[in-house]
Amino acid sequence: MNAPLRTAATPVDPVKLERLAEVAVKVGLQLQRGQDLVMTAPVAALPLVRLITKHAYIAGAGLVSTFYADEEATLARYRHAPDESFDRATDWLYQGMAKAYADGAARLAIAGDNPMLLSNEDPAKVARANKANSIAYKPALEKIANFDINWNIVSYPNPSWARQVFPDDAEDVAVEKLANAIFAASRVDRDDPVGAWKAHNANLRSRSAWLNGERFTALHFRGPGTDLTVGLADGHEWHGGASTAKNGITCNPNIPTEEVFTTPHALRVEGHASSTKPLSHQGTLIDDIRVRFEAGRIVEAHASRGEAVLNKVLDTDEGARRLGEVALVPHSSPISASGLLFYNTLFDENAACHIALGQCYSKCFLDGASLSPEQVAAQGGNSSLIHIDWMIGSGEIDIDGIRADGSRIPVMRAGEWA
Amino acid sequence: MNAPLRTAATPVDPVKLERLAEVAVKVGLQLQRGQDLVMTAPVAALPLVRLITKHAYIAGAGLVSTFYADEEATLARYRHAPDESFDRATDWLYQGMAKAYADGAARLAIAGDNPMLLSNEDPAKVARANKANSIAYKPALEKIANFDINWNIVSYPNPSWARQVFPDDAEDVAVEKLANAIFAASRVDRDDPVGAWKAHNANLRSRSAWLNGERFTALHFRGPGTDLTVGLADGHEWHGGASTAKNGITCNPNIPTEEVFTTPHALRVEGHASSTKPLSHQGTLIDDIRVRFEAGRIVEAHASRGEAVLNKVLDTDEGARRLGEVALVPHSSPISASGLLFYNTLFDENAACHIALGQCYSKCFLDGASLSPEQVAAQGGNSSLIHIDWMIGSGEIDIDGIRADGSRIPVMRAGEWA
Repeated sequence: MNAPLRTAATPVDPVKLERLAEVAVKVGLQLQRGQDLVMTAPVAALPLVRLITKHAYIAGAGLVSTFYADEEATLARYRHAPDESFDRATDWLYQGMAKAYADGAARLAIAGDNPMLLSNEDPAKVARANKANSIAYKPALEKIANFDINWNIVSYPNPSWARQVFPDDAEDVAVEKLANAIFAASRVDRDDPVGAWKAHNANLRSRSAWLNGERFTALHFRGPGTDLTVGLADGHEWHGGASTAKNGITCNPNIPTEEVFTTPHALRVEGHASSTKPLSHQGTLIDDIRVRFEAGRIVEAHASRGEAVLNKVLDTDEGARRLGEVALVPHSSPISASGLLFYNTLFDENAACHIALGQCYSKCFLDGASLSPEQVAAQGGNSSLIHIDWMIGSGEIDIDGIRADGSRIPVMRAGEWA
Repeated sequence: MNAPLRTAATPVDPVKLERLAEVAVKVGLQLQRGQDLVMTAPVAALPLVRLITKHAYIAGAGLVSTFYADEEATLARYRHAPDESFDRATDWLYQGMAKAYADGAARLAIAGDNPMLLSNEDPAKVARANKANSIAYKPALEKIANFDINWNIVSYPNPSWARQVFPDDAEDVAVEKLANAIFAASRVDRDDPVGAWKAHNANLRSRSAWLNGERFTALHFRGPGTDLTVGLADGHEWHGGASTAKNGITCNPNIPTEEVFTTPHALRVEGHASSTKPLSHQGTLIDDIRVRFEAGRIVEAHASRGEAVLNKVLDTDEGARRLGEVALVPHSSPISASGLLFYNTLFDENAACHIALGQCYSKCFLDGASLSPEQVAAQGGNSSLIHIDWMIGSGEIDIDGIRADGSRIPVMRAGEWA
């Protein structure tokens, strides 16, 4: 508990870390001169925060404000706080962030928390705290989910996360391995990361352009434990890679990203699906998910581990049982090829095709920026406090696109673009 | 720049650090069950933040929210941010804090920043940034200055501060020495710190009770370079040690504290005064201050070092040239006896009698809680964006109390209570 902050030798390559900071500012955010930046980070990510702060100011940022989360403080709350604390959240802070975004600030999140932090805490308290936080965070999250502003997530190899991904290695080795995996997936392990991101964005754009040209009404997923027809929302639009926010700034919200994705129809999902990777949800690992959909709604849900948390998540609100996103990722993606389970959606979702429970992205509609929430709902867009991705793709999945006339086109075979 | 957070051996005694956390929560704040806590801290104070968080939750805190400042991020702004950044501040955050205080949250600040952090930066930029911050912070500061809520400041021995106080020592030695000085001054170097604070509060209460009984209209300070008559505000009240906030909670805002203090009359200060210790003001050291007052207003100001910053401070607003506080501290106080210059007002002001430029404390009036800002002003209370203490006391200062009939009573002789 008595750990001072020290400048110590570190297994994290400082050159690549600084490239990651540059990519976050120049590619991830496309931060504009005079634009403020609101950043959130684990305290352990301080070295990356400092480099991003530097590059944000070099890019002309007005004010960079960083809000740190500390795993020890979170655990102290679970261990010592009175019961009534778990229905509370810092609504004033989130309202302030929403105001900052409304006034033009960009948003950057550094991921890297220990995915298993809360695995030994009372699941009921975890669910209550998450729900209170989701409700309080909604004004700010809406600005991000509606893509009102340019935003970005990058990752830092926290020791607590690295130990989870590489449990058999010493901490320094684990941190170095995770750092190198993050650097490779984020395309900063090469001399011209910004150029590499340009080429990668062009590739993802051509995939989504093809899907948008086909205008499928549904996708049919078949694989071990999965036979699922995912209806697509009326007027859905596929996106992938760089995308333009409503403030006119073209950014790469997720670094890394390998997916093309769109909005399913909340009422038109039928069949059953099995997860192909564990889902790490706010400190709990949920494994071997098996669900059955009827008319878009999950009517049956099981998991070999974390089933209680899964069912609590599904009970968050009506939209938590319906899909808000469907995404296609080839099995040969670099993250999949790494063979690692990151216990972190930002990485694991880019290793495989996936679906997401909960809130849809209004940008994934033709002319989405001008649609009201009511219009989004009328076209099949789902609404919820949550948005949780989980993987159903693998090297054994086949996907057909179904046209309005019922004809089928192969989209993927054995996990690769057909 | 690439400094990961490590749990390393530390020269800071963990037992005394935990006692300091307990004293902050139980004595400094008297945190109530269900009360939220808003904490600010340098990132280097993480070990103390964690212990305070733990003890706050044990005391029944609702939510503990900590906001970290990072010296490297501050320097990155000065070195890289566009010029227009320096007229900006995170107003949305301070407005949110003001809302949290209005809703019942307590406030704890951990001090310990490098007092010389900005000494090599452009003084004009420092002044602009400070002014923008003062304006933005005003809604939150008013809740603190008006004593609407229970609040507290404690200190952590940051390495960058320790190196300043003990420049001839290795960093670990400097941190250990500063930690021990903080622990002694904060009365946590004994077995029953909470009991020690009870006795200390009783002693300070008896001093202020005597001064309140005397009802002096002015104090006359005489010493090397000082011949100053400080008129006291009409209906002023002396305070010292524990005090009851408007929310009904009795707390010790400053840890350490050795002073009894009240509100001078903003229009009735005459003569000249010289500082007896350097003033460390937001990164600049201001030394050998010499000022002349006419009708309460500083009409002439000099300093051997930092004069430009001093004059910028005085130009903040009209109230910045007038006094908002006068405080009495015996020369034999433990902090004075340590012989150290802490470059930190929280400590240095408790080593000597001092005056403060700027905003007065409305609690330092009889029935102060019920006075409007207009009534405070009518009775002589000063108003300003700033509140800056500086030392005029020493072992050579004599102070007389002047009664309404002009008669004089010795208050201090050679720096000690007469």
